[in-house]
Amino acid sequence: MADQRFFQRAGPFALDDIVNRIGARMAGAAALGVMVRDLASLEEAKPGDLSVFADPRYRAAFEGTRASAVLTSPELAGEAPANGPCLVLIAEPRLAYTEISKIFYPNPPIEPGIDPHAAIAATATLGAGCQIDAGAVIGAHARIGARCHIGCNTVIGPAVVLGDDCVVGANATLSHALIGDRVGIFSGAVIGAQGFGFVPGPRGPVRIPQLGRVIIEDDAEIGANTTIDRGATGDTVIGAGTVIDNLVQIAHNVRIGRSCALAAQVGIAGSTQIGDGVQIGGQTAIAPHLTVGAGVRIAARSGVMRDIEPNLTVGGAPAIAIRDWHRQNAGLARMFGRRPRPLR
Amino acid sequence: MADQRFFQRAGPFALDDIVNRIGARMAGAAALGVMVRDLASLEEAKPGDLSVFADPRYRAAFEGTRASAVLTSPELAGEAPANGPCLVLIAEPRLAYTEISKIFYPNPPIEPGIDPHAAIAATATLGAGCQIDAGAVIGAHARIGARCHIGCNTVIGPAVVLGDDCVVGANATLSHALIGDRVGIFSGAVIGAQGFGFVPGPRGPVRIPQLGRVIIEDDAEIGANTTIDRGATGDTVIGAGTVIDNLVQIAHNVRIGRSCALAAQVGIAGSTQIGDGVQIGGQTAIAPHLTVGAGVRIAARSGVMRDIEPNLTVGGAPAIAIRDWHRQNAGLARMFGRRPRPLR
Amino acid sequence: MADQRFFQRAGPFALDDIVNRIGARMAGAAALGVMVRDLASLEEAKPGDLSVFADPRYRAAFEGTRASAVLTSPELAGEAPANGPCLVLIAEPRLAYTEISKIFYPNPPIEPGIDPHAAIAATATLGAGCQIDAGAVIGAHARIGARCHIGCNTVIGPAVVLGDDCVVGANATLSHALIGDRVGIFSGAVIGAQGFGFVPGPRGPVRIPQLGRVIIEDDAEIGANTTIDRGATGDTVIGAGTVIDNLVQIAHNVRIGRSCALAAQVGIAGSTQIGDGVQIGGQTAIAPHLTVGAGVRIAARSGVMRDIEPNLTVGGAPAIAIRDWHRQNAGLARMFGRRPRPLR
Repeated sequence: MADQRFFQRAGPFALDDIVNRIGARMAGAAALGVMVRDLASLEEAKPGDLSVFADPRYRAAFEGTRASAVLTSPELAGEAPANGPCLVLIAEPRLAYTEISKIFYPNPPIEPGIDPHAAIAATATLGAGCQIDAGAVIGAHARIGARCHIGCNTVIGPAVVLGDDCVVGANATLSHALIGDRVGIFSGAVIGAQGFGFVPGPRGPVRIPQLGRVIIEDDAEIGANTTIDRGATGDTVIGAGTVIDNLVQIAHNVRIGRSCALAAQVGIAGSTQIGDGVQIGGQTAIAPHLTVGAGVRIAARSGVMRDIEPNLTVGGAPAIAIRDWHRQNAGLARMFGRRPRPLR
Repeated sequence: MADQRFFQRAGPFALDDIVNRIGARMAGAAALGVMVRDLASLEEAKPGDLSVFADPRYRAAFEGTRASAVLTSPELAGEAPANGPCLVLIAEPRLAYTEISKIFYPNPPIEPGIDPHAAIAATATLGAGCQIDAGAVIGAHARIGARCHIGCNTVIGPAVVLGDDCVVGANATLSHALIGDRVGIFSGAVIGAQGFGFVPGPRGPVRIPQLGRVIIEDDAEIGANTTIDRGATGDTVIGAGTVIDNLVQIAHNVRIGRSCALAAQVGIAGSTQIGDGVQIGGQTAIAPHLTVGAGVRIAARSGVMRDIEPNLTVGGAPAIAIRDWHRQNAGLARMFGRRPRPLR
Repeated sequence: MADQRFFQRAGPFALDDIVNRIGARMAGAAALGVMVRDLASLEEAKPGDLSVFADPRYRAAFEGTRASAVLTSPELAGEAPANGPCLVLIAEPRLAYTEISKIFYPNPPIEPGIDPHAAIAATATLGAGCQIDAGAVIGAHARIGARCHIGCNTVIGPAVVLGDDCVVGANATLSHALIGDRVGIFSGAVIGAQGFGFVPGPRGPVRIPQLGRVIIEDDAEIGANTTIDRGATGDTVIGAGTVIDNLVQIAHNVRIGRSCALAAQVGIAGSTQIGDGVQIGGQTAIAPHLTVGAGVRIAARSGVMRDIEPNLTVGGAPAIAIRDWHRQNAGLARMFGRRPRPLR
């Protein structure tokens, strides 16, 4: 499936072993002796490959696949062709396929050691088994946990704390930050810069000293070239398990809950609070000092100007309930004579 | 108030001294012998702390505060509880609080010297007292003023000029630029890249050589991962005292006046001119070749497609007068049956 | 025209030579002995300069210019003042002016060699005549073509392939990428980071391993701080000759055709396909899994939520045919009592 120059494949694995590891079961006879060499889509699979069938729209591909085994749900198993591949049944086949992907293509093991081109302050401390790449700079009194990988030319500022098993890409910049375990920070991200806080002065804006920190909790992930400013006083917080895409702006004193997902180019203004499990579509902006309840879903390109109660789905700018937004768009189309199918 | 790992506090200071330094006066008896150790919000303050009360909505916090002294305005002083903290009176208490923050938490002093991991061209010149961090690269014939701080892995291109007392973060890239005094450029910013200028050619777009510069005047500030392209011919100009947030795009030949504030993710297209004192909300886009008058305020997420006269406030996309935009949004809500309070 | 500290001018050149090189013709008598020293706008030109007149609105400047020669089209030549400059006639004067700009201001020649501060893996291969700047890092098994220029502190990951004559700016990060000839990648760009792909899991989003690549074809250009994620399985593709501005986000498995132009801060969500010759205005977002036909033009700040047939022009969010969008904006203005000329 993957270019072996960039990704190293493990295996092959016995299908029985895989089935056991993910807690699935075989649909029919046991798979004694069936070996799986790689993963592939239904269309591209060859004998020896494992594939996934989780969406009835791909039935034709399922019927024609040459895969040796296919993950699917009990509900979809009836679509299987006679004399087809071994069927592996599990309630959430996509989730299982993802887990199996990690078995075949585990994250590349880190190669412990400090590149001679890295610059590490004498007072910094590194946990066991870290990999520090060429050009990385680690500041005074920084504390890096065990098994962290700090990419090339990344800068970890003075006194920054990283937990265990963190992966920081290349050319990233971290300062004024306390970071948990298993956090991923992608290349070019800037964590802990000064927030954009001013008071009006007689000769233009006067900068308010930004004396807070950035807290990133366990298992969070921060996208490439994303910026997260430190608090003005107090902290900017990214909750555990929250994932943030590329080119996102998180302003000072924003607090984001656990297990949220923010798509690319989102911007969240200062001091706004986002509950747990919130999903935010790309390029959405959220005004300062708002509260977005847990479980809220926000469509891409929305402009949120008011608080949102938990579990609502909203869209538009200013953002309104998603059904109202769709109704408004349809109404405008009727009213101003939009041709029936303008884009098709 | 601040994590002492990241911020060093000066002081303590006598309250009388502080009052004198900011030109305030005591509300009642003199503050003989009162010492101030730190700053804190009304809620979090302990004895020995100075706080600020500038917004009547926080009256309850004011009444309950344990702060030893509180900055407030003469108008608000009447709200003070009996036997409360020492009151320090000044017309603009927030501005004064900001000034006092800088007394307690001055910018960290630079540590003059050139890190052995920096690479400085033989023909570059550095003013007295510069701090050049590990991995920084300074190109041929670059001229850096006195007391500048160039962060880790930042690249200053050939012939770039910086004035005195500039601070450049980490992993920033500067080229084709003339920069004034006391300018701040945050981590990851890219100043002076080629503008996006093409003429249609027989086999697709043909790049127009970009032969101009970037001029950043005194006291301006450029946010993290912001990009400012050099002019095509002539210059891209950022006026004195203008502050630009993170992830902002300034295209070639844009000219921004003095003391403007541009929030995160704003984009300004080529050759547009922005007057003095303009405030632009986050994610706003401004079309090319426009003129935005002095003192204009533009709401977040606006799309400006026409010139704007001085001192107007606009919003929406296409941007219109802000009152008209609010009226339009309210009208659409009525017309398409939006439920009365959809987000609450 | 250009600051000689940053740009080196070639020449002077005989006007006859220039005329021959671009395939133009003189309007009147031959230009025997006329030498051209520089390029300048009609207003700024001095004797010895060549200028361009391609837009009748600048007739007054044309009449008053001191340029020794002016490029123009046969149609516009009639506007020339008596005893004016030598006229050089060509069908596309702007395109010709761009070509002449490259004669006077050729790209600075690269200076072959490897800076001692660069870190190049023993197994990497470099073509002849490469310039590798200070702080650049080139990973194991990377292959760099001939005459490439890799800027300061740029990181080329393991096994990345670049063709010949590529220029990569400073502080850029490339991984999991196969890149053609004559590709430009500007400073701070991040190519090949993990895409934003998750399946819902019992305890929040579970990352899907991202096992694809980024393919950038010949002559493409990628702007500063732009991010292009690698495919999930399969590739993210940027077609030949396509130009992408700053701070653009290209998600995993997006496929962009040839000779497209994407302005700053555009975001394209996963798996969307863009045909050849598409032009996309700044800050536009395109939803995932869409198809945008060849030759489509999309206005700035649009939100594309449906497929678009070839050669249409669209605008708005949700994007509709551009005429309908203008009609809708005008109708709303009438309906909600917008004052007649709110911005002027």
